[in-house]
Amino acid sequence: MHKGCVIRVGDLGEFGVIQRISGRLSQGAQVLLGPGDDAAVLAAPDGRVVVTTDLLIEGRHFRRDWSSGYDIGRKAAAQNLSDVVAMGADPTAIVVGLGLPADTAVAWLEALTDGFRDECALVGASVAGGDIARSDIVVLGVTALGDLGGRPPVTRAGARPGDVVAVAGRLGYAAAGLALLEGGRGTQTHHPVPGEAAAGRVALIDAHRRPQPAYAQGPEAARLGATAMLDVSDGLLQDLGHIAEAAGVGLVLDPAALPIPEIIAEAAAELGADPLDWVLTGGDDHALAATFPDGVRLPPYWTPIGRVVAGHDVQVEGHTRTKGGWDHFRG
Amino acid sequence: MHKGCVIRVGDLGEFGVIQRISGRLSQGAQVLLGPGDDAAVLAAPDGRVVVTTDLLIEGRHFRRDWSSGYDIGRKAAAQNLSDVVAMGADPTAIVVGLGLPADTAVAWLEALTDGFRDECALVGASVAGGDIARSDIVVLGVTALGDLGGRPPVTRAGARPGDVVAVAGRLGYAAAGLALLEGGRGTQTHHPVPGEAAAGRVALIDAHRRPQPAYAQGPEAARLGATAMLDVSDGLLQDLGHIAEAAGVGLVLDPAALPIPEIIAEAAAELGADPLDWVLTGGDDHALAATFPDGVRLPPYWTPIGRVVAGHDVQVEGHTRTKGGWDHFRG
Repeated sequence: MHKGCVIRVGDLGEFGVIQRISGRLSQGAQVLLGPGDDAAVLAAPDGRVVVTTDLLIEGRHFRRDWSSGYDIGRKAAAQNLSDVVAMGADPTAIVVGLGLPADTAVAWLEALTDGFRDECALVGASVAGGDIARSDIVVLGVTALGDLGGRPPVTRAGARPGDVVAVAGRLGYAAAGLALLEGGRGTQTHHPVPGEAAAGRVALIDAHRRPQPAYAQGPEAARLGATAMLDVSDGLLQDLGHIAEAAGVGLVLDPAALPIPEIIAEAAAELGADPLDWVLTGGDDHALAATFPDGVRLPPYWTPIGRVVAGHDVQVEGHTRTKGGWDHFRG
Repeated sequence: MHKGCVIRVGDLGEFGVIQRISGRLSQGAQVLLGPGDDAAVLAAPDGRVVVTTDLLIEGRHFRRDWSSGYDIGRKAAAQNLSDVVAMGADPTAIVVGLGLPADTAVAWLEALTDGFRDECALVGASVAGGDIARSDIVVLGVTALGDLGGRPPVTRAGARPGDVVAVAGRLGYAAAGLALLEGGRGTQTHHPVPGEAAAGRVALIDAHRRPQPAYAQGPEAARLGATAMLDVSDGLLQDLGHIAEAAGVGLVLDPAALPIPEIIAEAAAELGADPLDWVLTGGDDHALAATFPDGVRLPPYWTPIGRVVAGHDVQVEGHTRTKGGWDHFRG
């Protein structure tokens, strides 16, 4: 029987699974004690440590028929590492709680592990530990840690009237890719059938599966003196709303500064959607949005998109659009 | 309609829920930036940080009809804080990923939050941040951090032949309490009906609901020069097996040094169970097991129970019992 050829996590048991995972990882210099004990020990040379956690639940945050194990690992790591750089810190490690059905293929779990490992490697971080539990669906509890390197953390509260609002990284790509998947344009795990899919469509769906956060720009923004910063995870307008609220200011965005990439315009035309909607309210690309004192010379990766003003909330010039985005209980 | 009187998390939405939770928390001095930003910032005065994570899934690790929200919060925090002290570190904070059904009563969530907060307060730690996601069942991803205060971490690998094996904290209580619940002896959320339940039975069921880890004894053991230490979460024999394996030694336990508490003996008689089984293989009490150099004067809270020898595995003198415990995929 072919079914017997697939090794399942239930065949290996908890400790066998842990051994398989640990064997695929290597530990960076900042991991003083890695997996296998009650806890990991990480270097925290700054004397402060940045920590953030996210829970990802199958069917809510990912689908195993839309994304490979590898992609899911990459994305789950990315969204946490992005929160660390959004404080202006350098990520050092993640720890991962894995809830897995007993019939999960070990090969899928290995791909997931490789995804975590490879995404961490992009920023010099390690998978330093974790926990395994049996679950009816796949659940990922990811916690990322980082070091501030002597810099003050860049919070959401420091924006001041007169500051420039700028973004680094992609906006709208992942939302367009998700809309393509939801519209039935490519349901295969890895790629849509090439013959029927434009390259742009593949790129957008890949953007949904594996975001490309603007990792280097987080610590860079801190060094440039950013007054506020956050990771865009729920949509640009909604997330900038958090800066407006925390800092007690208003933000005015210039829509002309947010050009719609050609591949997003094409996908919107195909699906009859509004491309600006994806750019302004789509999450999951993990761009960084920050405010900088007027006059700061921004490196080319940063795009100025507006201004901080006295007032409250986020306005898009010439539009009556209100902030939208994703609320996990009402969305 | 009475149903309308209960506020559900779906009524408040994600940000309303976060506001409710944050309002019940206060932050210790080691929390430099608490909930509400992309990440928290904690003091790490030692220059190293201890980190551990656990995933708790409804129906596997807890039942809402057997434990209150408050008890589940206490227990979920306890099992992670216990991992931190088992390294010899002082816990500083936890962060929590919450997966919640939309119809979860806000009062239940508030009780859960209070449980996290109050358990952390026992060790001077804070709930410094978290994440909320919608889920069909309750899922808790808990990560605890700690500071080593200049001490080396106490790993599992340092035990040497001639060392004394000792335990601090309870053994067998939680397993007996769980057996009572599974045997139908007390299914109410808070307490069995007093008239029909002996005080001992209540105490055991409470021990299952809210473990009492030997928090102070972790850093104490490190200061006393413990050569190895761990948190007993899967059963004494199985967990000591991890020390045997990591250190390449054998452990010989004296069963006479492990007296069976009267209330455990009574519960075993009632259920026709072997009380030594609960003591040797029951998890969830989060006792600490450690090895100390021969001649170290152990404070009274530590009970010597055996010796480290050349060899491998864990033996109980006069018994052929092999190590048992809980394997999350085969158990």
